[in-house]
Amino acid sequence: MPIGHRYWAIPEGYIPAQSTNGDDPRFLSHETACLLNTGTQDAKVTITIYFTDREPAGPYHVTVPARRTVHLRFNDLKDPEPIPLDTPYASVIESSHPIVVQHTRLDTRQPALALLSTIAFNAD
Amino acid sequence: MPIGHRYWAIPEGYIPAQSTNGDDPRFLSHETACLLNTGTQDAKVTITIYFTDREPAGPYHVTVPARRTVHLRFNDLKDPEPIPLDTPYASVIESSHPIVVQHTRLDTRQPALALLSTIAFNAD
Amino acid sequence: MPIGHRYWAIPEGYIPAQSTNGDDPRFLSHETACLLNTGTQDAKVTITIYFTDREPAGPYHVTVPARRTVHLRFNDLKDPEPIPLDTPYASVIESSHPIVVQHTRLDTRQPALALLSTIAFNAD
Amino acid sequence: MPIGHRYWAIPEGYIPAQSTNGDDPRFLSHETACLLNTGTQDAKVTITIYFTDREPAGPYHVTVPARRTVHLRFNDLKDPEPIPLDTPYASVIESSHPIVVQHTRLDTRQPALALLSTIAFNAD
Repeated sequence: MPIGHRYWAIPEGYIPAQSTNGDDPRFLSHETACLLNTGTQDAKVTITIYFTDREPAGPYHVTVPARRTVHLRFNDLKDPEPIPLDTPYASVIESSHPIVVQHTRLDTRQPALALLSTIAFNAD
Repeated sequence: MPIGHRYWAIPEGYIPAQSTNGDDPRFLSHETACLLNTGTQDAKVTITIYFTDREPAGPYHVTVPARRTVHLRFNDLKDPEPIPLDTPYASVIESSHPIVVQHTRLDTRQPALALLSTIAFNAD
Repeated sequence: MPIGHRYWAIPEGYIPAQSTNGDDPRFLSHETACLLNTGTQDAKVTITIYFTDREPAGPYHVTVPARRTVHLRFNDLKDPEPIPLDTPYASVIESSHPIVVQHTRLDTRQPALALLSTIAFNAD
Repeated sequence: MPIGHRYWAIPEGYIPAQSTNGDDPRFLSHETACLLNTGTQDAKVTITIYFTDREPAGPYHVTVPARRTVHLRFNDLKDPEPIPLDTPYASVIESSHPIVVQHTRLDTRQPALALLSTIAFNAD
């Protein structure tokens, strides 16, 4: 049986607009949802983004293939709209099959990187 | 049904008194409770602050509107009293409706920022 | 009813032996267990420290008064023995009454501080 | 009764290829799974590594002796194959007896270290 849950939430979200060494994509300031699918069927994932002062954005669609992990950068979500930089947001993640979700930010605004991470909140 | 719980706790709390580039509010050392309300009704939130050597402060009142996130800086709590800087504290968060809570600190005391984050402890 | 649990564990533990600006206790590299007691009775807390290659140390005794938080630095544990620096360890925390526990490290070995934090694992 | 669970997952995984002061193993960029066995019997641990675009690697085998903690660096896993650097991965950890797992990264690519940590996701 695949490990995890189908509903997850990440209340913290903030993509810094600046970066040090941002030409190197590894050092671009970014936020990531690390999605792990240990099952034998592809997981169809839908993401909704919540804001402080406007209606939610989405749905965004991502597939996590069977027995794979996808480290999804929120920076890369473009459809139906990009996530604005320097703007607080939150996310809800729904999956067709159980997955496990961890949230990580790399912040390189100052000439020394900073990291945060936490297992997301599971809401099943 | 809205995602989350009505009772949350964050044992860690500490707002550094110094900042690098603190004139820019983005780089002011701060602590945040990221509150996500995925429901269709506004969440009335009450915060109590615990200290090491005095009675708790509060209640502080915040509203998280329906389908919105509020990234609340503890630095901004003023009523009934501001939270002292450079002082260990903890917080308990009660909400009229289910919410999800994540705790984040940005520390810019030295000329390179540092971050920490964790999903808060849910106490329902 | 007080919030929390009586049994907690923190598998990560490591007090860096060096510090930048370590004469200022705020900037001394340290590890902390943030203990929150929301109840009306004092919590008697017992800590056991586990190592890689020797028998556990302890018990260490701490009281978290009613309606107070104690941000306990592992650096300050002296009885029955100090925790060695630059040495991996883990901790188990037992309390006479429910508490909430969060783990934080401040690392100032390099001239820019780093932070980590997570809610501890509750084992009730 | 030993504290913890037998099944854990860590969706985030990434070992930076560069380090500052990497000749000193303490400052080598690394990822760690901190494993705590509070029980009286050795825990036989099996780790499987998931990737974005290839089949999982493993199993890797580690023993956590009774009443000990092992802070296992993913960098040190060599058999059946090393984990590639600068490559997103995820891990699933199975144990013969209950353990507690915490995930930590030290990143020293820039001349100031960064840390992240979270209790892993328990999947029992």
